[in-house]
Amino acid sequence: MLTPPPPPRSNPTWIHRRPDALVTTSVADSLERSRRGERLPLAGLTFAVKDNIDVAGVPTTAGCPSFATVPTRNATVVQRLLDAGATFVGKTNMDQFATGLVGTRSPYGAVHASGMPEHVAGGSSSGSAVVVADGEVDLALGTDTAGSGRVPAAFNGVVGLKPSPGLVPTTGVVPACADFDCVSVFARTVSAATLVLAVIAGPDGVDPRCRTRREDIPLGAPARPVLGVPDEQHLRALSPAYREAFAHTIDRLEASGVETTVVDIAPLLDVARLLYDSALVAERYSAVGDAVSRRSPDIDPTVAEIILGGRDAGAVEFVGDLECLAHAGSHATRMLAGIDGLLLPTTTEHPTLAEVAAEPLEVNRRLGTFTNFCNLLGMCGVAVPGASTTGRFGVMVLAEQDHDQVIADLAARIHATTSDEAGGALDESGPRDPEASARSGAAGVPEIWPDDDCRLAVFGAHLRGQPLHHQLETLGARWTADIRTSPDYRLFSLRTEPPKPGLVPARPGEGGGSIHGELYRLPHSALGRLLATLPAPMSLTSVTLENGDTVVGFGCTADALPGAENITDWADWRSYRRGTTSVVTPAAAHSPSTDPREDSVRC
Amino acid sequence: MLTPPPPPRSNPTWIHRRPDALVTTSVADSLERSRRGERLPLAGLTFAVKDNIDVAGVPTTAGCPSFATVPTRNATVVQRLLDAGATFVGKTNMDQFATGLVGTRSPYGAVHASGMPEHVAGGSSSGSAVVVADGEVDLALGTDTAGSGRVPAAFNGVVGLKPSPGLVPTTGVVPACADFDCVSVFARTVSAATLVLAVIAGPDGVDPRCRTRREDIPLGAPARPVLGVPDEQHLRALSPAYREAFAHTIDRLEASGVETTVVDIAPLLDVARLLYDSALVAERYSAVGDAVSRRSPDIDPTVAEIILGGRDAGAVEFVGDLECLAHAGSHATRMLAGIDGLLLPTTTEHPTLAEVAAEPLEVNRRLGTFTNFCNLLGMCGVAVPGASTTGRFGVMVLAEQDHDQVIADLAARIHATTSDEAGGALDESGPRDPEASARSGAAGVPEIWPDDDCRLAVFGAHLRGQPLHHQLETLGARWTADIRTSPDYRLFSLRTEPPKPGLVPARPGEGGGSIHGELYRLPHSALGRLLATLPAPMSLTSVTLENGDTVVGFGCTADALPGAENITDWADWRSYRRGTTSVVTPAAAHSPSTDPREDSVRC
Repeated sequence: MLTPPPPPRSNPTWIHRRPDALVTTSVADSLERSRRGERLPLAGLTFAVKDNIDVAGVPTTAGCPSFATVPTRNATVVQRLLDAGATFVGKTNMDQFATGLVGTRSPYGAVHASGMPEHVAGGSSSGSAVVVADGEVDLALGTDTAGSGRVPAAFNGVVGLKPSPGLVPTTGVVPACADFDCVSVFARTVSAATLVLAVIAGPDGVDPRCRTRREDIPLGAPARPVLGVPDEQHLRALSPAYREAFAHTIDRLEASGVETTVVDIAPLLDVARLLYDSALVAERYSAVGDAVSRRSPDIDPTVAEIILGGRDAGAVEFVGDLECLAHAGSHATRMLAGIDGLLLPTTTEHPTLAEVAAEPLEVNRRLGTFTNFCNLLGMCGVAVPGASTTGRFGVMVLAEQDHDQVIADLAARIHATTSDEAGGALDESGPRDPEASARSGAAGVPEIWPDDDCRLAVFGAHLRGQPLHHQLETLGARWTADIRTSPDYRLFSLRTEPPKPGLVPARPGEGGGSIHGELYRLPHSALGRLLATLPAPMSLTSVTLENGDTVVGFGCTADALPGAENITDWADWRSYRRGTTSVVTPAAAHSPSTDPREDSVRC
Repeated sequence: MLTPPPPPRSNPTWIHRRPDALVTTSVADSLERSRRGERLPLAGLTFAVKDNIDVAGVPTTAGCPSFATVPTRNATVVQRLLDAGATFVGKTNMDQFATGLVGTRSPYGAVHASGMPEHVAGGSSSGSAVVVADGEVDLALGTDTAGSGRVPAAFNGVVGLKPSPGLVPTTGVVPACADFDCVSVFARTVSAATLVLAVIAGPDGVDPRCRTRREDIPLGAPARPVLGVPDEQHLRALSPAYREAFAHTIDRLEASGVETTVVDIAPLLDVARLLYDSALVAERYSAVGDAVSRRSPDIDPTVAEIILGGRDAGAVEFVGDLECLAHAGSHATRMLAGIDGLLLPTTTEHPTLAEVAAEPLEVNRRLGTFTNFCNLLGMCGVAVPGASTTGRFGVMVLAEQDHDQVIADLAARIHATTSDEAGGALDESGPRDPEASARSGAAGVPEIWPDDDCRLAVFGAHLRGQPLHHQLETLGARWTADIRTSPDYRLFSLRTEPPKPGLVPARPGEGGGSIHGELYRLPHSALGRLLATLPAPMSLTSVTLENGDTVVGFGCTADALPGAENITDWADWRSYRRGTTSVVTPAAAHSPSTDPREDSVRC
């Protein structure tokens, strides 16, 4: 299907590029510092920067040479990538002033999709998506107001992560619509994009719209997630090939254990028009209207037409648009409350450069059908390659504000399901078995907020596969590790109905063991909620793990122990339960261990 | 100082009033239903409704007869008051279209302050404030966009509670600025106003701006709160009498154990102008501009001038105003993070009717100096009478979004400190001793979210006066009750350093007792946070109280008990601690009890 890749220089992806030698030296230096023990989570990785984001000493053009200034400071996001050990490679081409979803509106040339010279790269973050797809860099920063960080991801078969508005500072970014702009991330895997998000998220004390994180948001997707999907009527905007690909993607996901349910996206699509066809365009004029009004010859005429259209909009009309947004947001909140994420095609079709040139506004409008509303409603989204047999196709998973970790998990799972058809080399490494896939979703994707200290060790009914595990999923818990306690615990089977395990620290001489369990990360509010419904005789207390960490873990009150069976030698509640319903000895039941004490049965 | 009250009928407080006989019957009926066991938290109380809030079957004029329509449904807030057993008395006069802080901009007549015929009542909720001050009703609903629920409270010596925007539905309320309007409550005590807030708060499924409550917001003010106050420069807007009264109020508060700290309110005052002098006035035009444009003879000319001023504002200017708001909000968030509340004079002076008539716009502008910015920045506020020897004066305590319970507590405490000078009959009943006052603040003010199930029983270092009590305050905990466990618990003094109490359920025959403690309500996230830092051997578990309730409470792990001293007969950790550092026997140490077992010493 794909035409052979053209010579690299034919695609105008870069506006500014550092010499290879400097890049190579910087990568080597970062790796060396990392080897010496510096904490550099992005050591050795290279990144590109969309040219509306400041890199100190390099002109910021926003795709318009006459607009360019040379910043003296890095944008917050750039500085955070550098501080994390990543190496800056260059600034990438874009639709001028981030106004477009096509990648052709630039005096630096129209960017075509990676390996597809006839087809557009998508925009506005065109260059950033292509250089990641081409393997020229590991990561790239984009921006996304109407879909600029997701549409190019779809057309280049890479991952495009658009955080919740207000999660990542926009300090040092040329605004498109200041109230709705997001910095976005391109990478070849969801894990890599999420790792970048973990580095760049959080207030910088300058961007007034950047929020501190709430303590009551979910930190992981359930093993059997429910994704909302649009009904047939709202998929009519898709090209036949895209419609088939979307259906095919859903089939794949359902086969992998994902449940889908039809939801009404009409109110979302209704607000999508606001971004280009309403008084909200005044946001664009407010940002760069003065520059566009000067009508330098390097101003793209289509871009100028759009931005100048915001100049004379009325405030009363703007207020009416805000009212529409409030109602749509209310609908979205209710709709999203019933699902873990919303699955949509990222865009409607993959146009050629010629098709865009023929109808620049109309094609662009169609491309934003499913992306435009997202930031207007405060939502987050991750675009990943979908399952298609006939071309490049992408899907997005979207969720309400601050559910970024949930959709990162879901996107990784979707990518793992679709990626063998999405471009080979861009594979999200992960297993295909549904249960294992779910675990990989939670375990394999980096934590966006890893410093959160709220961890819970479970040893009984909350373990995976056990009757109360669903409580953890409902609470937004995130599986972190299979664990063992330090070797001085005793485990009892309590005389509750049904039986529950009682974990108690052993005193010297009492004969303890190392007990198997699972460690989860929870939102603080979820831990409080779990505790508030905990029945006697269970308790939550500090538990010491094999590695010396202390975490919150399940225990029980002392009055429950007399008469309870000491099952320490089973070392694992699930083994004990299996063993007592079949004929298995403790030593044989639990997973192999090098601890010799586990071979002696002392029930 | 006060002139004798005029004949009641001379003050045009009502626009519509139900016959006394109907009101009397309704009150009696509600009390009877309550006696029969119906849950009616407002049984027997009467309320007035500002005439921009719908009451089914009664015209809603918004202070403009030609605008009136007769709604068929009650506003959500009205319906909730009725459902809670309150009796509707009538609709009150107001500044037309809620545009004004004076109470004189109405074709129904200029409202004067309760008992002060020369002085304005303040607006726009003029009638609602006066009928509460006059004792004609127990409660009244108002609205507050720029201060309309607080300025009239100050001029009439009553409490004006303005919730966080988005906490109370505005369904059935004529908008002033739809994005910034709040329903507000007038009452003679903070407790009564908070009780009403508890009844009217929460989404109704219709108002798209009404939010569900977050799980990570504080639920109470600390015993020794820190209030931010402006520096001298920002008090220059005050009349000499008000400046003296504000200083006097601060002195009183400091003497009562409140700490004050000077904060920079300049960025807040800067945004205040936006509400009347910016493109945001387009919000007002959007709401009622069509009606005003018809120029009926009953349209107030000053109101018309203001509202029509929003017609031609530009969207680009509106966007610039939103940018100002974002920066001011960021400043406010940082500033408020260091204090429990911001204490400000409610308004600058108490003008006469003649003064307002002479300079209608300028006086009104001054009156909003300290109230205008509040809703623009999403803040909540409660206005209460201040301490003044020379006239009627009010102060406000403000805080960030959703800290409504914190400022209710603070306002009750302030009112208790100032109310002997604020009008006698309007006294907030409460003790004067600082510690007792703090406890009353938390205990006496109703809970806005009483159904929250997150309660924590403490028995040791977290008790009031004990070393770790400050943790609860920092976590936003709210004291609920002094409690005792059911009579089957054992209490141990654990061999920790310092010693800690270990509470354990007694098994049959072990000899338990009823242990004294304190019960707190916590935000779920705070309970999780507390648990996440809990050191071994302490645990949190389910504890049964004397009344049969089960709550989360402190316990300890079983390994900590051997060697620990059984102090069950002390029945109270503080008594035990006092007793072991002086010579007190358990029976004499703890508070008197009718439980005969407590008289036998069994250490």
